[in-house]
Amino acid sequence: MTSPVGLHRVVEPVGVLPQAAWRLDASPRVGPDEVLIDVERLNLDAASFRQLSEKHGGDGAAVRAEVLEIVTSRGKMHNPVTGSGGMLVGTVRAVGPESPLGLKVGDRVATLVSLTLTPLSVDDGLAGWDGLGEQVPCSGHAVLFARSIAAVLPDDLDPRLALSVLDVCGAPALTDRVVRGYAAPTVAVLGGAGKSGSLALVAARRAGAARTVGVVPVAGERERLVAAGLADEVVLADARDPVGLSAAVAGALGGPADVTVVCVDVPGCEHGAILSTVDGGTVIFFSMATSFAAAALGAEGLAADVSMLVGNGYVPGHAEFALGLVRAEAGVRGLFEARLAAD
Amino acid sequence: MTSPVGLHRVVEPVGVLPQAAWRLDASPRVGPDEVLIDVERLNLDAASFRQLSEKHGGDGAAVRAEVLEIVTSRGKMHNPVTGSGGMLVGTVRAVGPESPLGLKVGDRVATLVSLTLTPLSVDDGLAGWDGLGEQVPCSGHAVLFARSIAAVLPDDLDPRLALSVLDVCGAPALTDRVVRGYAAPTVAVLGGAGKSGSLALVAARRAGAARTVGVVPVAGERERLVAAGLADEVVLADARDPVGLSAAVAGALGGPADVTVVCVDVPGCEHGAILSTVDGGTVIFFSMATSFAAAALGAEGLAADVSMLVGNGYVPGHAEFALGLVRAEAGVRGLFEARLAAD
Repeated sequence: MTSPVGLHRVVEPVGVLPQAAWRLDASPRVGPDEVLIDVERLNLDAASFRQLSEKHGGDGAAVRAEVLEIVTSRGKMHNPVTGSGGMLVGTVRAVGPESPLGLKVGDRVATLVSLTLTPLSVDDGLAGWDGLGEQVPCSGHAVLFARSIAAVLPDDLDPRLALSVLDVCGAPALTDRVVRGYAAPTVAVLGGAGKSGSLALVAARRAGAARTVGVVPVAGERERLVAAGLADEVVLADARDPVGLSAAVAGALGGPADVTVVCVDVPGCEHGAILSTVDGGTVIFFSMATSFAAAALGAEGLAADVSMLVGNGYVPGHAEFALGLVRAEAGVRGLFEARLAAD
Repeated sequence: MTSPVGLHRVVEPVGVLPQAAWRLDASPRVGPDEVLIDVERLNLDAASFRQLSEKHGGDGAAVRAEVLEIVTSRGKMHNPVTGSGGMLVGTVRAVGPESPLGLKVGDRVATLVSLTLTPLSVDDGLAGWDGLGEQVPCSGHAVLFARSIAAVLPDDLDPRLALSVLDVCGAPALTDRVVRGYAAPTVAVLGGAGKSGSLALVAARRAGAARTVGVVPVAGERERLVAAGLADEVVLADARDPVGLSAAVAGALGGPADVTVVCVDVPGCEHGAILSTVDGGTVIFFSMATSFAAAALGAEGLAADVSMLVGNGYVPGHAEFALGLVRAEAGVRGLFEARLAAD
């Protein structure tokens, strides 16, 4: 039996998880619970591409050569400097008889687990890529484990829109679950006009929030979020300013929020989020800029009896849930499409 | 009206919380919801004292002078290099009529909020301290806000034992709350022989855990924890090794834990804790060495549907709850007393 988390694919050092491994076995033999993907494109993590591009002074051929060297030597696209990977798009070539992922041959999928733990082999030398952008067209194969996550790309949505939604699909699913744990709660979303923030706002409303407020840092975002109609209130505040933020949230909701969702990707928002949340409430931190110590010590220093959740990017059914929100809510879809058009 | 979080005591920069302030107003005028403490001793944070002692090459007089300079210039004992403070012990001198803390004049108390946000003034030049240890006998006063936390020192326990318990009292209280959210769950405590870990183990058992396992890194701790009788099983494993740890936990509990409590203060325990926890379970991270990103990305990479809580050091009633456990559980008390005797 193969390991559901892919331990059998770890070549060195033996015994660690695939993400921590230096090298994976990317051979196309499919274990009983594995899935083999024909890869058509890699989306490199933004931090990884930036590091490579800066290292080589924007020389696309050199960037391409290094990406190829990483994949060849490690059996995965795991940037050793940034520690990050990305995701991939491809088509299912083979499905082991015991795979629990529900995929079938021919499905066009995007992987929702990081490339840093996904066995990958490239067979075209990345000839179709100029090395100048994060989107890497390529030919090769990749392997999913029993506990990997992949989403079938929908026929009815622009693939770029779908990928953009799938990238943040954990946020609305976890927001939905937390909001349903309260009776008609008030909900504040910091960074409400962003990708994860706008999805969290509509998820909260649909999950039974009595009142929602989207907090944004600049007037342009306020206008866009008001026009999209996703929140009962939209307020302008700096999420790094605990006093100003909590006053703005309390003003909009009639008191501190029952649930506060942090989708602002800048450091220093922990104390403001805690101070904006009522005793007995919950703060969900989705921002990767969150400091564990600032959150833990901040709540203690404020004698704040709030539950603080690390925003787990995985909730069962999260991909379909997020895509469903974008289909049903024209306001969210409009924000995503405007962002894609501006890229 | 004064601010419950002490904004009215912030001198500069104006508008930030007391912890973020450079300088606080430590005047002994008591606001309507404040409490004034006659200070008898400061317990400097270990990291803060170490930094000061190393900076001055162990010269106690120089360390003493710098601590005095910090308190005088900042109105609080907030080490500007380490960013840390400590706690204090003293006696209540005055209580504002609207203070919600439940303290009365003459109570001997320990503060459970950091010295980094506590207005403090010293009036004896720290003459009774040699500058060679973290315990600073002194004379002066300090101020508590409405949302500060202080515990009355019990008459029936050695003050050193009580302080040692109060230092980690958030862990058993939050463990109790989380375990009660499940029906007869299995519970794993990583670092089960330590201060917070041993308290979490007995809290879990009393809250209705069906089976508990304490995980420890070395044989000596295993012997001590087995002898204390706090867990159904005690196993030896490196919490930084996800595969070994999860196998050890599953072996002891008959499968992954419903609740995993991380009390190991070393980096790199996130993936092991997640892999040791069943889908639908909860991981509580009490270790200040926890990486937010490692937890968030690790759960996603493992497709683990686990709730991950930032271990909030404040839960209402946490001090009395922890002291009660130590009174009632000879095994825990023995571990604490052995640790104090070894200091």
